[in-house]
Amino acid sequence: MPAKNSAPTSLLLAVDAGGTSTRAVLVDTDGRAHGSGRSSGGNPTAVGVDGAVTAIGEAAIQAAASGPKGARHTTATIAMAGEKTPAFAEQVTDRLGALGWGQVVLQHDLLGVFGSGTHLLDGYALIAGTGSVAARVVGGRLAHVIGGRGWLLGDAGSGFWIGQQVARAVIAALDGQQPPTALTPLVLGAVGVETDLRSAAGRVRAVRALMSWCYARPPVQLAALAPLAFAAHDDSTARAILMSASQALADLVAALAVPEVSGPIVAGGSVLVRGILAAPADLHRQLAQIAGGAELTPVSDGVVGTAVLALRGAGVDVDEAMFTRVRAEVERYVP
Amino acid sequence: MPAKNSAPTSLLLAVDAGGTSTRAVLVDTDGRAHGSGRSSGGNPTAVGVDGAVTAIGEAAIQAAASGPKGARHTTATIAMAGEKTPAFAEQVTDRLGALGWGQVVLQHDLLGVFGSGTHLLDGYALIAGTGSVAARVVGGRLAHVIGGRGWLLGDAGSGFWIGQQVARAVIAALDGQQPPTALTPLVLGAVGVETDLRSAAGRVRAVRALMSWCYARPPVQLAALAPLAFAAHDDSTARAILMSASQALADLVAALAVPEVSGPIVAGGSVLVRGILAAPADLHRQLAQIAGGAELTPVSDGVVGTAVLALRGAGVDVDEAMFTRVRAEVERYVP
Repeated sequence: MPAKNSAPTSLLLAVDAGGTSTRAVLVDTDGRAHGSGRSSGGNPTAVGVDGAVTAIGEAAIQAAASGPKGARHTTATIAMAGEKTPAFAEQVTDRLGALGWGQVVLQHDLLGVFGSGTHLLDGYALIAGTGSVAARVVGGRLAHVIGGRGWLLGDAGSGFWIGQQVARAVIAALDGQQPPTALTPLVLGAVGVETDLRSAAGRVRAVRALMSWCYARPPVQLAALAPLAFAAHDDSTARAILMSASQALADLVAALAVPEVSGPIVAGGSVLVRGILAAPADLHRQLAQIAGGAELTPVSDGVVGTAVLALRGAGVDVDEAMFTRVRAEVERYVP
Repeated sequence: MPAKNSAPTSLLLAVDAGGTSTRAVLVDTDGRAHGSGRSSGGNPTAVGVDGAVTAIGEAAIQAAASGPKGARHTTATIAMAGEKTPAFAEQVTDRLGALGWGQVVLQHDLLGVFGSGTHLLDGYALIAGTGSVAARVVGGRLAHVIGGRGWLLGDAGSGFWIGQQVARAVIAALDGQQPPTALTPLVLGAVGVETDLRSAAGRVRAVRALMSWCYARPPVQLAALAPLAFAAHDDSTARAILMSASQALADLVAALAVPEVSGPIVAGGSVLVRGILAAPADLHRQLAQIAGGAELTPVSDGVVGTAVLALRGAGVDVDEAMFTRVRAEVERYVP
């Protein structure tokens, strides 16, 4: 833990509330970090309003406890995906208000991710985690958002989508509708289904069992199968799925691209950053070519950008030097 | 109503238990019909075990009430899609047992549909209703089934799938990701969403509202949007969806086809028979060409075939003449 800076007059709280984890950091208006917190998922769509408010509260308490005593708390900025319902906004404002944060600002996770990769105010953000979404950012605001439609309506290239393609490919292979794939033993092993190739009423038993597994849980949990596609990336079926995912993500950005906004393209989300971009280069060639070859900047999460949003909200001019400082400070505090 | 035949010694009950309606007919072993019934959905996956058992019981009561007094009830044969769970099998056996049917046989709806179109024992059945499924039938049994995977895992070409493509196309058009489509006003009108093209946080309000509508109900209810694709079949987007649906259904049969089994191909399900095959011919050219141009025989439901299954189960040889008689008899009783 870095040495505490001298007591600040006032502190800002930046919270990156994701579906599986919530990260918080305290910053002062000079861009120095003073404490951090981490808790479970803080997105109300993923964990419910109560769960999200509890997680965000926990991260805020940890951050304050690890920060300087007697500091004045001002505004809390929360970056999150999806709808900001009035119920959530009220409850999280109450919760953080009770912890001394007099003002709560809700921001879109696309802006948190974008601001984690650049100090510029114009460019593109692309996220692929469980879902996929992209935005054109102009003047630090969301000018146009595409994707983020959820499992039922699209989100091609997301973890859910890759997992769904994996499940479909294995069923089609077992049904003899598509060629065999190395994904089959991986998937059946992962879900604990026996490789029973005997047929009953014209259908292989393993297919019935895998179908039952898929329908026995919330649809988004098919995202749990996505890592198997990366593990089997030498298999032609897995390869085709991953290349389609890259293409779908590239298409999202291409649909947003306008000549006046050339980049950067900030890339976030575990499936994109730790999956697709970490796979062999030929699997994501499409992504390297989007928007006329503009720079693709991967970021590990949106916490730096949320701190930047908090600072800008407090009237701080976050230029390149300030951005570099904030990023270094936040990364020391939020590993 | 036809004149009653002379009192039979024993009667068979044939029940076609679909997702939205259940049809029952009484037949004797000479292939004559003696009564019929119709009730609401009788598929346990669609309406729950209790609802399905109640509907099947109601159809059976109606059929018996419209049939001859004093007839001996023997076996009830029920054709239905999806899993035949032990709970359903027990409850429906109890229910029909209480109505005098000493034996209950559960059959696959694919065999009910197949037997509604031909007296032959070998061929193919293809169904597209809310879901899609196909089978190769050999010796009157299901040799190989493909499809029937439900909304999460495929069922391309089904009513759900067409409705999902329609919703996706409208959202993509409103997002500026795809060209405008005549489906947009039809869909927004059908779901009662105002055409509000103002943007909030980078996203058109009508898109948010349509997404909310789609997620506010069970996924299969997207099938309610499928008729809009048929209504707008001159629109290039709708056209592309319907041609993809036809192609997907043709692919199902193609994946099943073997040289030893040349046909017929019996086609069932409302989306296929009253939708796709009723649309202009160029939209379902793919289906006319499947399996080397084998005869495609559309049937309105599976009740004739279920009666045929019941008769064969009772040891009756259903040849072409008997099949023709059963079909004419059943169609008189079950309009």
